[in-house]
Amino acid sequence: MTVVTKTHAVRNGVDTEQLFGTLDVIKAQPELAKFQFRVSNRWIDGSHNRSTIKDFYAAGGEDTTRSEAFVIDAGEPAILVGTDTGANPAEYLLHALAACLTTSIVYVAAARKVQLTSVESMLTGDMDVRGALGVDDEPRNGFERISVSFHVTGNAPEEKLREVVERAQKRSAVYDMVTNGVPVTVEVTTH
Amino acid sequence: MTVVTKTHAVRNGVDTEQLFGTLDVIKAQPELAKFQFRVSNRWIDGSHNRSTIKDFYAAGGEDTTRSEAFVIDAGEPAILVGTDTGANPAEYLLHALAACLTTSIVYVAAARKVQLTSVESMLTGDMDVRGALGVDDEPRNGFERISVSFHVTGNAPEEKLREVVERAQKRSAVYDMVTNGVPVTVEVTTH
Repeated sequence: MTVVTKTHAVRNGVDTEQLFGTLDVIKAQPELAKFQFRVSNRWIDGSHNRSTIKDFYAAGGEDTTRSEAFVIDAGEPAILVGTDTGANPAEYLLHALAACLTTSIVYVAAARKVQLTSVESMLTGDMDVRGALGVDDEPRNGFERISVSFHVTGNAPEEKLREVVERAQKRSAVYDMVTNGVPVTVEVTTH
Repeated sequence: MTVVTKTHAVRNGVDTEQLFGTLDVIKAQPELAKFQFRVSNRWIDGSHNRSTIKDFYAAGGEDTTRSEAFVIDAGEPAILVGTDTGANPAEYLLHALAACLTTSIVYVAAARKVQLTSVESMLTGDMDVRGALGVDDEPRNGFERISVSFHVTGNAPEEKLREVVERAQKRSAVYDMVTNGVPVTVEVTTH
């Protein structure tokens, strides 16, 4: 009997063989890099609304590997006239940024043979709510600034860990969108 | 026995008395409009990380009205080397945008005495993943564009419903951030 052992170079929980394989395929066939992500949302009551996230387009076709949808509720705290049915939209934006930077750090570290032991972050967003509440035109509606503080440890010198974070920041999809903005079109139907 | 009935003008699930009261207080004391929202995030394994959201600063002090934290998991689908431990970061950004626009529509409608019957939306974000994967410097990392499609119904003429959506778009915190960008600072400690 012959036992064939396939070596999976899994580092930081990332299958680097699969990761490098994906990169090779996309280099060879750039048209497979076109992705479309989607969210459908439905108002429930007051500040309570719910998003459903499942299907997406990737690598030349509809991706149907997800067996179940993610269902995510939003809300507002009492001071913003809600009942805490979920984190609020601005907090979800901070979560998106934290998650994207963290995933980028983990993938970059895996590709560069850095074994991480922990990645923790704290994000803060400062907002003058006179903008969003329509009380004053002067303050902008969104955060004036976002501060991200990472604590990263692993089996590499400080300089290398810092390089991993810098590279992750340079490639993060959500960091790009939050810092540079994205063109958004809004269409409305009423019947 | 005297029964005092307090009239709560609740419309669309929004207590408009409380809403207008909040606006009056903030007009009178603009320093109370300074809010800070926060997210802490921890890497679990691979593309799986988890945000915890609870405390925030509002109206001159720490808000402690939330009894429990919101715990939100992120992940990636198989094609992006994950195991679907949660929606992915870019999808969370779309959710943040959907939730903020929807809440803004509901609040603006309540203030303008429009009773809504439904607010539904579909958001799509188109991305060339060569950017975020570091394969090519040409495509940006994030979405090239986001399309939002709203279906809104209520007891008002089409023109008025459209005005509500326009005003909401003009005041939405996340719409402002996603379209215009926000300054982000990133700090790192490694021990």
